[in-house]
Order: sequence, then C-alpha cells, then structure tokens
Amino acid sequence: MESDVGLHGHMGVRFDIVSQGEELLSGQAVDTNAAWISGQLGSLGLFPGRVTVVGDDLESIREVLRESAERASLVVCTGGLGPTSDDLTREAVALAFSRPLHQDPTAMAQIEARYRTRNRPMPETNRVQALLPEGAELLENLLGTAPGFRLDTGSCAAFFFPGVPFEMKPMVEAYLLPYARLRFSLARRRTVILRTVNLAESVAAQRMEGFERPGVGVGYRASFPEVQVKLHVDDGLDSDALAAEAIERLGRQLVFGVDSGTLADVVGNLLRARGQTVATAESCTAGRIAAELTATAGASDYFVGGAVVYANAEKVRQCGVSAALLDSHGAVSEPVARALAEGIRLRSGANWGLAVTGVGGPGGGSVEKPVGTVHFACAGPDGTTHRAVRLPYDRPRNLAASVAAALDLLRLRLLNQT
Amino acid sequence: MESDVGLHGHMGVRFDIVSQGEELLSGQAVDTNAAWISGQLGSLGLFPGRVTVVGDDLESIREVLRESAERASLVVCTGGLGPTSDDLTREAVALAFSRPLHQDPTAMAQIEARYRTRNRPMPETNRVQALLPEGAELLENLLGTAPGFRLDTGSCAAFFFPGVPFEMKPMVEAYLLPYARLRFSLARRRTVILRTVNLAESVAAQRMEGFERPGVGVGYRASFPEVQVKLHVDDGLDSDALAAEAIERLGRQLVFGVDSGTLADVVGNLLRARGQTVATAESCTAGRIAAELTATAGASDYFVGGAVVYANAEKVRQCGVSAALLDSHGAVSEPVARALAEGIRLRSGANWGLAVTGVGGPGGGSVEKPVGTVHFACAGPDGTTHRAVRLPYDRPRNLAASVAAALDLLRLRLLNQT
Repeated sequence: MESDVGLHGHMGVRFDIVSQGEELLSGQAVDTNAAWISGQLGSLGLFPGRVTVVGDDLESIREVLRESAERASLVVCTGGLGPTSDDLTREAVALAFSRPLHQDPTAMAQIEARYRTRNRPMPETNRVQALLPEGAELLENLLGTAPGFRLDTGSCAAFFFPGVPFEMKPMVEAYLLPYARLRFSLARRRTVILRTVNLAESVAAQRMEGFERPGVGVGYRASFPEVQVKLHVDDGLDSDALAAEAIERLGRQLVFGVDSGTLADVVGNLLRARGQTVATAESCTAGRIAAELTATAGASDYFVGGAVVYANAEKVRQCGVSAALLDSHGAVSEPVARALAEGIRLRSGANWGLAVTGVGGPGGGSVEKPVGTVHFACAGPDGTTHRAVRLPYDRPRNLAASVAAALDLLRLRLLNQT
Repeated sequence: MESDVGLHGHMGVRFDIVSQGEELLSGQAVDTNAAWISGQLGSLGLFPGRVTVVGDDLESIREVLRESAERASLVVCTGGLGPTSDDLTREAVALAFSRPLHQDPTAMAQIEARYRTRNRPMPETNRVQALLPEGAELLENLLGTAPGFRLDTGSCAAFFFPGVPFEMKPMVEAYLLPYARLRFSLARRRTVILRTVNLAESVAAQRMEGFERPGVGVGYRASFPEVQVKLHVDDGLDSDALAAEAIERLGRQLVFGVDSGTLADVVGNLLRARGQTVATAESCTAGRIAAELTATAGASDYFVGGAVVYANAEKVRQCGVSAALLDSHGAVSEPVARALAEGIRLRSGANWGLAVTGVGGPGGGSVEKPVGTVHFACAGPDGTTHRAVRLPYDRPRNLAASVAAALDLLRLRLLNQT
C-alpha cells in the first residue's frame, strides 16, 4: 500500500494512462509500464485518475482514447505501435480524433537508418510504423523501430509510446517528463528512496510524522519484505541533508541503502570493499540466501558458496554440527544456528559464515517452536552473533523475510566491525 | 503472450473488469485479481473488453462504474469493500445507480458470526460492511468480513467482490461463474493445461496446428521458462482423450505435468513415490534448484540438501572434484558437471545427485564457452547422464532456465528408471 503526503499541488490536472495489448487484457502479462509511468509522473506530483487496459481491438482502443482525451489534460498511452496487423494504436488515434494517417518522411528516415546501422534490409511491413496522425509531433525512438508521437486534441495532450519497456522508458524521460513540468508548471523534484527491511510501514510512518514541509513530500512503499520511505524533494532544497535527517529519524542502522541497490548488493559491496568473503549454511531457506547473493554478476568476488543443510544428517555432515547438540536443542535453536555458522566459516575458509535454521511452515511447528520461528547466526573474525524471530507469514513470505533478516544481520556486523 | 483459437462463441457479450485500489493505481501493487478473473471467464469463452484501475476516489469510482454498466452486460469489480474510510465502493455504487445504502440484516448477522467464531468482539467500524445498495443481492464471504453483492442495472449485472485474492476467488467460483454460464448460455468448459519447459511456444503451436475442432479450443501461455498449452474442452467431450492426443502431438516426454503442480512438485512427487532422495550441487544457479525443490512444504521427504559450489575451491572441497579436472577442462564442462553430481550423491548418500555448472552472464563468457553455456549432470542408481545447453537470455532468465532444465533432466531419469 502506497500513500503520499504533501503532494497536493496539482490535483487539478487530470491525467490518465492507457495500456494497450491483448496479453495485458487476458492477464497473461503484467502491465509494468503503467506502474512505471505512474511512478515517474508521481515524483513530479501528478497522479493518474485511472489506468485502462485494452486489447487488440480497434473499436475498443478508439473508444478509450476518445473518452480519456475528453476527461484528462494528459493521456499517456503505451503499446500497439509495432509493424504487425494487431498493432492498431495509430489507426485508432486517426479514427478517434479524425486525424488521417500520413507517411511521415522523418519517421521513415529514422526507421530506415535503424535498419541500415544494423546492416539489415527493412521489411516492407515496417513502413506502417512511419504513419503518423495529422498534426502529431514525432517522438524519435532511439532503441527501436516504433516511433512515438504526441497529439494535442482540445485541451488534452496525448502521448503515444511503444510498449517495449526499454524503448518506452528513455522516451518518457526525454519527451514526457520535460513537457509535463513545463505545461503544468511542476517543480523539478528529486525522489530519495530510503530502504529498510526490519521496519514496519506503520512504524516508519510514525517516525516520519511531521516531516513534510513546503517542497518536501513523504511516501511509503511496501515491497515485501522491504519497506521504502520516499522523500519527494523540490529542486533547490538540499535533498542530501533531508535524507540524512530522515535517516536519523528512522534509525541509522535500519536504513540499509539509499535509492538503488538491493540488500544483497549492499552486503556484497561492503564485503568487496573489505576484501572479505562469505559462505552460507541454510536449512529452511534452502539456498535462497545464496541465490540472492548471486543475483548480481560479480558475486564471486565475495561469495564462495555454502551448504544447503535441509536434513539433520546434512547439518552434521556439512557443518560438523554434533548429533548431541541436535538432540538436546533441536535443529531450530540458537546453539545449532551458531554451530552451522561457525562450521561453514571454518570449513569454507570464508571470512564470514551466515546460517539460518527455522520452521517455514505450514507444517513442522510445535508449541515451543511454532511456525515462523527462525534462528540466525553470523560467525566472523570478531565472534559469532545470534538473532531469533517469530515470523507471522505464510511459507513463501516467512522464507523471504528470513533471507532479508539473515543478510541484514551480516550487514550490521560488517558495518560495526572493529 | 496468450492467444486463443476456436473461442468465437460469445463475442456479443461485453464484459468489463474494474479493479479498485490506490496501491494498484500508483503501481505499487500489481493487479493480479483482474488477470485471474479474466482467466476464469476466458475458460468459459468470455473475454473482457477492458480492465480499468481506479484509486480511492469516490467520484472516479462512481464514474467508471456508470460507464462500465452502460457499455457491458457484465461488470466484475474487486476492492473497496473493507471497513475503513478509504473503502468507497459501496458508496460509489449507491451514487452511480441511485440505490441508497441500507443495513442488510443477513450481512450484519454473517459479519457478527465471523467475529463470534473467532471469539473476538466486532469493532463498530465493521458495521459499514453490512451496508448494501438497494436491490442488491448479498453474496456471502466465507473467508472474510467483507460481503460481496450483485446489482442488476438495466441489462447489466454488476458483481462486487472484496479485493483480497483468497476471499475473492472462492466467491467468483461460487457466484460469478455459475451465473455467467446460465445468463449467457455458455457451454460448461473444462480447461486442460499441458505444461512444458523445453518447448518453444512457436514449436508447440506448430505441433498443435489443426487440433481445434467444434467444442475444442487451443490456447498458449508462456510463463518463462514454462510454456503451457491450454485445451478448452466443452462439456460432453472426452477431455482426457483429447489431452492424451495433444500430449502425443507435443511429445510425451516433453509434457511434465497436466493442470496444477510445478516442475519441482512433479519431480518431488516422483521421488516420494519411489522412496528416493536427491541432493544438489550448484555452481551458477547457486541454490536456486534447492530453493525450488523446497518451495512446497514436505520437501524433506525427498530433498536432503546440497552444496552451493560457486568458487572452484568449493567444488573441490564439497564435491571432491579434482583440481586437475578443473584445470584441464575448466569449471564449465561436462567432466566437472559429472564429477559434481557424482560427488554430491556419494557424500550425501542421496539416491540422486543433480549438478549444474555454467556461465550465467553477463560477464564470464569466452569464445569456447560463451555466456549461457550450461552443463547439467544427473547421477543416480543407474549411472550418470549429462546435458549441455547454450541459453540466449539475460542473467536472471539464464539461471531460471537452468533450474528448469536441471529439474527436467532428473524428471526424465526418474520416469525412465529401470
């Protein structure tokens, strides 16, 4: 759930998004374009009135374009600009606004140039991509053959972009955002994202209460298990100082990163900077921490490998946990977590050993160790630390939260290393 | 990309979906409800004309409901039925269709009963959930406090369901699907899903060419790295025989499962049925196969654990791969894949050892071993088999495809075991 406070500047501007594509309508592909565009304009203080998804049907596209243009000052449409017969957006625009299509020589030249630089002949079918509605302004696509365009109709500016995200995004940045700023007199704004994994959204909101001020908005985004606090800062204000102030409020140790970079990336960069390595010993998370640590290329700089110790016999065999310890404390316990972390560190020769053992659920819980009980241990050059949690989620989320908690434990050890 | 062939029966019925929720509009949450509902009605031959997403704004919801009801014979709306002040759907319906809200005694009794069975007092705020627009038919929610309702307005039937997916889904199955079948005289249809991981969608489509016949439609769904072939079969036809015929066409060994169950579940069930176990040795996939095998609870029946052998030293230490073998063939090679599989099998005592070593990318490729080169080996009671592929994707998809290819190798070994 996202909420944004302090962004009441431009409620008068009605803005709509139209996403075109049969695969979006049938639910077989997720409409990530609308979410991304929404976020971009949101950081300027513009929020969509509605998002409409339509399929490859000429009449449906025409209908929704007409309606949107009547209602909104700004319409942003993606998709349907390709060369095939189910790419109908150009034709729908022509019908909706009575603007006959004509071959645009500049568009044609750009498409031909793209094929030339790739040393490939241009298929005849691609000629239709140079068709523009009368009065439309061409928006060059530097990464694909589908040009975009802007059409002003009444008091509405309608932007049309290709549906391929990596083509659409730079076009939105180059054409739409500057236009929106100018046309609606929006302040340039920077969004600073403060990223946390051990802070509930409600607690974050409490701590940030009263932080808003003229030119500074605060928003929240929960992307399990991460909670992000977003500062929307008008140009001319010191976003670094504001970020530092917000980090103090939230808790300095709780904010693992600012803007981009996952928790695993942050941990990886800390390890790399110190010339250190880590090995993992995972029971319930069964490889998920290792997978997370290797999501970004170059992980071999700091990740050597690890053990997936699902069965107790594997805890004994791979990490040297004693059978007596397992017997007396059970696999899900502080002593076993510590033994796993120390065992994998010793055997792998890595600087750090990171271990998890817990009950992911839905089965396997007991009165003393209910589902969601997870023990973490981190063994390093300056000793071993332990943490335990009782997670309230379902299996996938219990495991995802465990991965984040384990990585965060290592992060804090790396930060506080003497 | 989904395509459906042979479902032209009910093009005359206009059906729209409305998803309500600020977090969907701002793009912070993905609208999975619309996709699911679309799929359910799609299997009956009904496809939506459009999906509209609106936020927590009374006037926007009212507007889109009025428009949808004028256009469509069927409108399905989710969200906004909770007890808080930003749950505005009830009020928007009342305004849109001039149907004042009244407290429905049956709805009130159902909500009170839910709290009673949980031994908790009902908060006063929940009383608003018993408000229904005049003339609406109550649809009981057995899994939550937000009742749904149906309202007929003109020639349109509008259904309102809570936005929480696990509450909404059984309600759609219980109320919406039977209603749609009856009202629009739709044939009862069963959808059979044939699931594959080693078949391109275009190849699947070629092999299925001409399979359609009266009462039988064919659709495709790619959900990387899986490709699904969907048979939509009218009641009265033998869906089992049709599925068997389609499986023969596609290739019997290629279809890993029918309807539900992931590839990992299928492998797990094969192992469980045979009373056998598996251990993994993963280099580039770094724990992703283990994670996949443990996604479903109960995996300890057949998964003992494994080794994440990212660094070469770990391949030696954990699986006994000889340094000489690594030197002469390189880590990404058939001999090393075989040694990993045999090593982990021997050391863990599992019946099967499954190993992967490859170049996930984007870096790390060479002329002989370009990015995407991946070697798989499976060691079992009847020997070791090997497979190599050259994957053309980016890092995340190369790794996901590698997990599927490894699991499929084990599946075929289990199926063909003597």
